[in-house]
Amino acid sequence: MSTIPIVPDSGTAYGRKAPTHKAELTEVGAGTPMGELLRRYWHPIGLTRDASDTPREVRVLGETLILFRDGEGRAGVVHPRCAHRGASLYYGKVEARGIRCCYHGWLFDVQGHCLEQPCEPQLGERSRGKVRQPWYPVQERYGLIWLYLGPPDCKPLLPHYDALEVVETGEFIEADDSSIGGGGPQIIPCNWLQHYENLVDPFHVPILHASFSGTQFVPAMAVMPEVEFETVEAGVRTTSLRQLPDGTTLRRISEAALPTLRVIPNPRIGSYGRVESIGWVLPLDDHHFRIYVAGRVKASGDLVRMRSRLNGKLWEELTPEEHQRFPGDYEAQVSQGPIGAHSEEHLVTSDRGIVMIRKLLRRQLDALREGRDPAGIVRDPQAGPVRFAAGNYLLQRDSAQPQPALD
Amino acid sequence: MSTIPIVPDSGTAYGRKAPTHKAELTEVGAGTPMGELLRRYWHPIGLTRDASDTPREVRVLGETLILFRDGEGRAGVVHPRCAHRGASLYYGKVEARGIRCCYHGWLFDVQGHCLEQPCEPQLGERSRGKVRQPWYPVQERYGLIWLYLGPPDCKPLLPHYDALEVVETGEFIEADDSSIGGGGPQIIPCNWLQHYENLVDPFHVPILHASFSGTQFVPAMAVMPEVEFETVEAGVRTTSLRQLPDGTTLRRISEAALPTLRVIPNPRIGSYGRVESIGWVLPLDDHHFRIYVAGRVKASGDLVRMRSRLNGKLWEELTPEEHQRFPGDYEAQVSQGPIGAHSEEHLVTSDRGIVMIRKLLRRQLDALREGRDPAGIVRDPQAGPVRFAAGNYLLQRDSAQPQPALD
Amino acid sequence: MSTIPIVPDSGTAYGRKAPTHKAELTEVGAGTPMGELLRRYWHPIGLTRDASDTPREVRVLGETLILFRDGEGRAGVVHPRCAHRGASLYYGKVEARGIRCCYHGWLFDVQGHCLEQPCEPQLGERSRGKVRQPWYPVQERYGLIWLYLGPPDCKPLLPHYDALEVVETGEFIEADDSSIGGGGPQIIPCNWLQHYENLVDPFHVPILHASFSGTQFVPAMAVMPEVEFETVEAGVRTTSLRQLPDGTTLRRISEAALPTLRVIPNPRIGSYGRVESIGWVLPLDDHHFRIYVAGRVKASGDLVRMRSRLNGKLWEELTPEEHQRFPGDYEAQVSQGPIGAHSEEHLVTSDRGIVMIRKLLRRQLDALREGRDPAGIVRDPQAGPVRFAAGNYLLQRDSAQPQPALD
Repeated sequence: MSTIPIVPDSGTAYGRKAPTHKAELTEVGAGTPMGELLRRYWHPIGLTRDASDTPREVRVLGETLILFRDGEGRAGVVHPRCAHRGASLYYGKVEARGIRCCYHGWLFDVQGHCLEQPCEPQLGERSRGKVRQPWYPVQERYGLIWLYLGPPDCKPLLPHYDALEVVETGEFIEADDSSIGGGGPQIIPCNWLQHYENLVDPFHVPILHASFSGTQFVPAMAVMPEVEFETVEAGVRTTSLRQLPDGTTLRRISEAALPTLRVIPNPRIGSYGRVESIGWVLPLDDHHFRIYVAGRVKASGDLVRMRSRLNGKLWEELTPEEHQRFPGDYEAQVSQGPIGAHSEEHLVTSDRGIVMIRKLLRRQLDALREGRDPAGIVRDPQAGPVRFAAGNYLLQRDSAQPQPALD
Repeated sequence: MSTIPIVPDSGTAYGRKAPTHKAELTEVGAGTPMGELLRRYWHPIGLTRDASDTPREVRVLGETLILFRDGEGRAGVVHPRCAHRGASLYYGKVEARGIRCCYHGWLFDVQGHCLEQPCEPQLGERSRGKVRQPWYPVQERYGLIWLYLGPPDCKPLLPHYDALEVVETGEFIEADDSSIGGGGPQIIPCNWLQHYENLVDPFHVPILHASFSGTQFVPAMAVMPEVEFETVEAGVRTTSLRQLPDGTTLRRISEAALPTLRVIPNPRIGSYGRVESIGWVLPLDDHHFRIYVAGRVKASGDLVRMRSRLNGKLWEELTPEEHQRFPGDYEAQVSQGPIGAHSEEHLVTSDRGIVMIRKLLRRQLDALREGRDPAGIVRDPQAGPVRFAAGNYLLQRDSAQPQPALD
Repeated sequence: MSTIPIVPDSGTAYGRKAPTHKAELTEVGAGTPMGELLRRYWHPIGLTRDASDTPREVRVLGETLILFRDGEGRAGVVHPRCAHRGASLYYGKVEARGIRCCYHGWLFDVQGHCLEQPCEPQLGERSRGKVRQPWYPVQERYGLIWLYLGPPDCKPLLPHYDALEVVETGEFIEADDSSIGGGGPQIIPCNWLQHYENLVDPFHVPILHASFSGTQFVPAMAVMPEVEFETVEAGVRTTSLRQLPDGTTLRRISEAALPTLRVIPNPRIGSYGRVESIGWVLPLDDHHFRIYVAGRVKASGDLVRMRSRLNGKLWEELTPEEHQRFPGDYEAQVSQGPIGAHSEEHLVTSDRGIVMIRKLLRRQLDALREGRDPAGIVRDPQAGPVRFAAGNYLLQRDSAQPQPALD
């Protein structure tokens, strides 16, 4: 039998290596590099109304905690297991001075001080002073509850933001917890970095949000932009220029800022000008995140109306077939896996924003290791609000640079 | 800028250690210290009627087993995987002499002897004699099926109990498998020790079962008791004295006895006198338990009518909001975690019963290690029934000690 | 007290060893011995119609893959994570030349070549040439999609089978994916070997499929057969002789062939003669398999009508009580566990087919280790179709050997 020489197939999936991910950039548990970095900042963990006399379980950076508001109006966040014998304070009774465990009635204030031990009439204040329910400091601003989970002696100030402080006539600040921008449900089952990196990826917009889904935003957004990336002090700024059919140019600036900020102008471009809202990507654990948003609105509910729709349907109203046929941010990012397989990536020129944000994160890990504050930490009470260049701007045909320089 | 010296927060949850549990007191698998200790006693694993010609899967101490009753009335418990090729005897056919595997028809008696191999006409009795389906010895008493899972040469007698042997006119013995006393469903998803320790914790009663839930039992039980704990030969006895508004004193004695007995008088105190029932906490595995009860009743169903209710609703009828707002034993104990985090406990004077029961358990682990029988093992067939001091007793105003001494 | 000497129980389940399984015969992941052996053969992974312009997720040997058919009719199978940034090609758009990722629009052909990178206008063909989406070679035959997941330079020919090539008048070839022969649903939650071994176990038929289930096939199959096993070049052949009441003899030959073939004549014996169909047991992963079948039929749907029924009900229509009372292949094999506990088996004379098939598999593992092709690999394009002796044959009273010798 004469045999024909056969060229073996190339590039098949046989023998490929087990995928790996960049743990130092993605994992958020206590004691991990990124977990400790994120613990140096304040994070929004609920809406103001979430702190009430009904204890509420919250997940943050791999920790489960109990949020409540005592009868004097103070919001508190405590470790769920009662310091006595570990019954959960989820079943606690909220009183004027704090939260009382259901099992033996120990009462704790918002800072974990033990105020009462009703089954211990012999034990006085001194004994109670040795008991402390683990707690975290809380602040409230912009309709959100903020939590600091880091080392006590590193606690920074909770920053003010220009976009939320300088409010125009008829506008007010509203907060939202529906994970606007996530393209799916409130809790999104993949690592937070997959979403955070998406913020510095304007190229996917004309593909995922126009070619695949139909025009999800506005026709202008379907144009493939010219893009410039820039690392600024505490983030990566993306400037996208789109030449529009009428000869004007859409100049769109968005920022991914430390620690987890989405500073993204409305992709539906209701009006031109500076960014309307700020979002915070909250890692619940290594494999889940959600997004809190605060923004300037003219009517209550303006924020939640920004949630993505497809043929008028919200994500949870789509059939499995529609999810497959019209994928959005949720499908693209969640399908990267619980944590993306970085070892299998092929980054190209359009991914340089992603390269930059990873470098920025690594520099902050270095800062921590070297005992310095990471970028974006505010310690000066006199510092003015943080300003971003982000916004949608329209350049007229003859206008070369219509915007004031921002930095 | 002049800076105000800031005192860092104290007692926050940052940097707390990973919780640990006392494995030697909680884990029940074969070969573990507590698993081997519990394997030295008989345990109820079903109601008499559970053993029938329909094979039934039971979980005990981390093992899955098959319970059946052959055509001659003998209850049997065997390992599920057929000794031949491992098909489950759950699919077996129960016959006069034993249980027959569905796959190739091997027939085993209640002691695992192989009686038939229908696909092996050449193989005789001698070959069959080499095959043994793993089995455990069974007894029946008090309406319950009892199993001994320990070393064959350590098998003790199945104890008789005074509370179930000395029956008054109009009373009879009834058994129940609804996990009375567990405050929840039949199978409770946490470690058995969390419930067993609850038996020596009378202080939680006025808090959890009165202040939190509303008066769950009777008003007298809402009074904070004076309590005395006593280690007796095979258990810890708790005596709670409550001064009632009418000048009488409620003297309530309960016992946690080895290995897993709840000797708890009715908290609804239908009548005074010695304890009406005994419960056995059966660890299904490290993270699940259930409770079997046998008691003297006057009408069928008296036991199951003791199940906790809230506003007339059984546990499974409550909404999630009601579970949170009106927690009971189930919520308190299950919320301690699959296995409680002992490293985070702060035991105080009201927890001395818990300290005593742990010591008692540890002494039995020592006994095992030293080759001695643990306490509560009965080997003398002439021994009278085990008696407990437990009961609800009413002391009149002038009466100092109205009860006969019990030991 | 005089004590009666007590003989301790023997053969109890106490102290039995943790069960183990033969990993080298059962586990199918990449890099495992059996995984690598199975990767030397083509496997059916779908029906022809499963490859379409809607991407479809398939599981094979522990790998998740995407099956599609491009606009030019070519079926393709690729790794799900896009080579760019890992979004799943499940959400891809199928086009004339291949499949396009939803995230940034990279287009891949059925061999994983990158044809377009729409966000990379500067990068040309040379850059794209460095990117390859991992893929596997595909063929189509007998209504099935075939996949080769092995080393490219070992890729064999896809065999032809006499049973599917020599078609009689009025017959045509049909394919089915309902896991005919599995006795249950499409996906069966246990290791593939449990089913494969069942093929060389004719003794279970009169027990499981007659005594337990009632007459599941035809009365003749309820007769306990005389059985002869024979290792042939690429399989184990089982010849079962049944003496029927009318003096005739049913001679039934079935084969388990490499790699996973079920060559089993219809147990309902519609007509006598050579085997009508071939099945392939596809391991989805270590704990799940499914069966694809191709066969000669006279009417569309003849194959799926072979699915087991009990009192006219399909498996999924039975109640839990019926599943327990009338177990079939599914219940027997799945109840052996996710992977059978080989350390607890007691193999006897009726299991010699199982011993032979395990030896046959081990010899192929040896061949692989020694750098030789395992049995059943076809490399000669001139080779005729593979023939099997399998079939149902009726021997008349006076007829000693009515069948032509087949080998």
